Amino acid sequence: MNKQLIFKKRPVGLPDADTWNLETNEIPELKDGEVLIQNHYISLDPAMRGWMNDTKSYIEPVAIGDVMRAGSIGKVVKANNHPKFNIGDCIVGWGGVQQYLVTNGDNCHKVNDSIAPMPKYLGVLGMPGMTAYFGILEVGKIKEGDIVLVSGAAGAVGSVVGQIAKIKGCTVIGVAGGKQKCDYLLSDLGFDVAIDYKSENILTALKEKCPKGIDVYFDNVGGDILDAALTILRKHARIVICGAISQYNNTGHVKGPGNYLSLLVNRASMQGMVVFDYTDDYGEAAKEIGTWMMQGKLSSREDIYDGIENFHDVFQRLFSGDKMGKLLLKVI
Amino acid sequence: MNKQLIFKKRPVGLPDADTWNLETNEIPELKDGEVLIQNHYISLDPAMRGWMNDTKSYIEPVAIGDVMRAGSIGKVVKANNHPKFNIGDCIVGWGGVQQYLVTNGDNCHKVNDSIAPMPKYLGVLGMPGMTAYFGILEVGKIKEGDIVLVSGAAGAVGSVVGQIAKIKGCTVIGVAGGKQKCDYLLSDLGFDVAIDYKSENILTALKEKCPKGIDVYFDNVGGDILDAALTILRKHARIVICGAISQYNNTGHVKGPGNYLSLLVNRASMQGMVVFDYTDDYGEAAKEIGTWMMQGKLSSREDIYDGIENFHDVFQRLFSGDKMGKLLLKVI
Repeated sequence: MNKQLIFKKRPVGLPDADTWNLETNEIPELKDGEVLIQNHYISLDPAMRGWMNDTKSYIEPVAIGDVMRAGSIGKVVKANNHPKFNIGDCIVGWGGVQQYLVTNGDNCHKVNDSIAPMPKYLGVLGMPGMTAYFGILEVGKIKEGDIVLVSGAAGAVGSVVGQIAKIKGCTVIGVAGGKQKCDYLLSDLGFDVAIDYKSENILTALKEKCPKGIDVYFDNVGGDILDAALTILRKHARIVICGAISQYNNTGHVKGPGNYLSLLVNRASMQGMVVFDYTDDYGEAAKEIGTWMMQGKLSSREDIYDGIENFHDVFQRLFSGDKMGKLLLKVI
Repeated sequence: MNKQLIFKKRPVGLPDADTWNLETNEIPELKDGEVLIQNHYISLDPAMRGWMNDTKSYIEPVAIGDVMRAGSIGKVVKANNHPKFNIGDCIVGWGGVQQYLVTNGDNCHKVNDSIAPMPKYLGVLGMPGMTAYFGILEVGKIKEGDIVLVSGAAGAVGSVVGQIAKIKGCTVIGVAGGKQKCDYLLSDLGFDVAIDYKSENILTALKEKCPKGIDVYFDNVGGDILDAALTILRKHARIVICGAISQYNNTGHVKGPGNYLSLLVNRASMQGMVVFDYTDDYGEAAKEIGTWMMQGKLSSREDIYDGIENFHDVFQRLFSGDKMGKLLLKVI
């Protein structure tokens, strides 16, 4: 039997418990060329909130009645003549919020869980790590000496963004919520400056702690922090629009950046990114990130909770910020 | 004697008449290496509104008590050993809103008014033309087949942007205020589509008249039109932030583009520009624009009013939109 989280109702604002329904269903027989994967970990990402809206986006919205979409990692427990996957293989894919997945292997790839533990493949070596890598290097186009600001800095993406920027010789300022996260940025991740947006006025703090302004802003949050960042752009600054978690549960309009004319004054740019565009280069990126990890230049944390029954409660942590690093649900 | 418009008071919102004071002052004696230029035409540009604010921008604000800053064209009427300029030379520069200018020639350059009449050197061959040229080619990076949207399309910059886009093989949609301007876009300038934002709902009109979306948006206006344009971006679209005339006289906050997350969804970018960055290449650009004019591929209109006494009233036309093409004041 397979416990599956079925998407029941499009939420307005922060999703409440009746957005989903946990059902127990039989696992269908494998067709020729299919495998059965037992999910070990489910990835919880802010982007999931966007997938629930019935609006044009970079990906189809999750359909009502479908298993809630999510990245996952697990192991092949049954195989029916699959050309590539064998029993025992460790597979990363879009397994959804469920215990088991029957698949022909599309959009799945095999990883080696003896090199890195499974949770890393959903974090620093997975979608968040790839987002950070391509976002800061390809879109942010950082170069040595740049002053780089990153929001959501203790999160799965932001923490990697900041560390890559440090590796590349930049000065890095991180914005995060709470003292514990700010301490983590400074002592564990080697950021130069940390700003606690929950206890500091962001505009005042930025002006004080980035007196020279910023060359790159990697934005995961939108809202007031984006608007504040716009006020301290240096000439030819680049803003990477990766996400806007502060706006995802808005029931009204999204808050647009009122200070956007700073782009004109500073000949600056603001560019959006979607990590899926870089799929062909994930392998190379993961190799480089892996090397940095082995050299002790890049570290990551996962915050792992237990039980598919707890999905809803754990999911809320994405938006309350009550988590450290990559948020995962262990479902085995 | 020299009639000079002195900047008296920083305006809040739309400048009222006591923002300036018209004074009559003696013209100082020329020092060695100086010339006296009699201004013929003063350029009236939306950017002047920004120069009046005491905020950090791409140029110093006009100081209280100074002659109001403006582009101008005139003729040398007196020269005291100037190394380059002689009596009778036609000179474009930052003459300000006044009848005469004493200068050592910095930031002035000589033009040939037998090739084109003087007003063209403040319009299509001057700052607005250069803004259009570098904005749409260097920042907008248009290529054949692109769908290009331009706002303020009947204005000094927008009209040239659209025509250059047509020359380069793009489909061009112009947004302007009123039937007369829209007719001008279609019949005189060869735009493919015109939208009258004063009589049409901009969002509905854009969705209807740009069913395929847009590759480039050249924004002169900001506000609701920018927000609407964001909803019809194609993948990898580019937005050129050239100005935001709808916001310049705001007494409250600038309206930020609430739909900016369309940049993420569409991997699109929004980039600001300031024409002064391209000064070194003005000559080449003017030559190319001049060639297009002679080939009948590019036309321009100037809307010329008379008398320095009327500066304030004529200036209002920039914001009421009650003008066609480049707004000029004849002061001789």
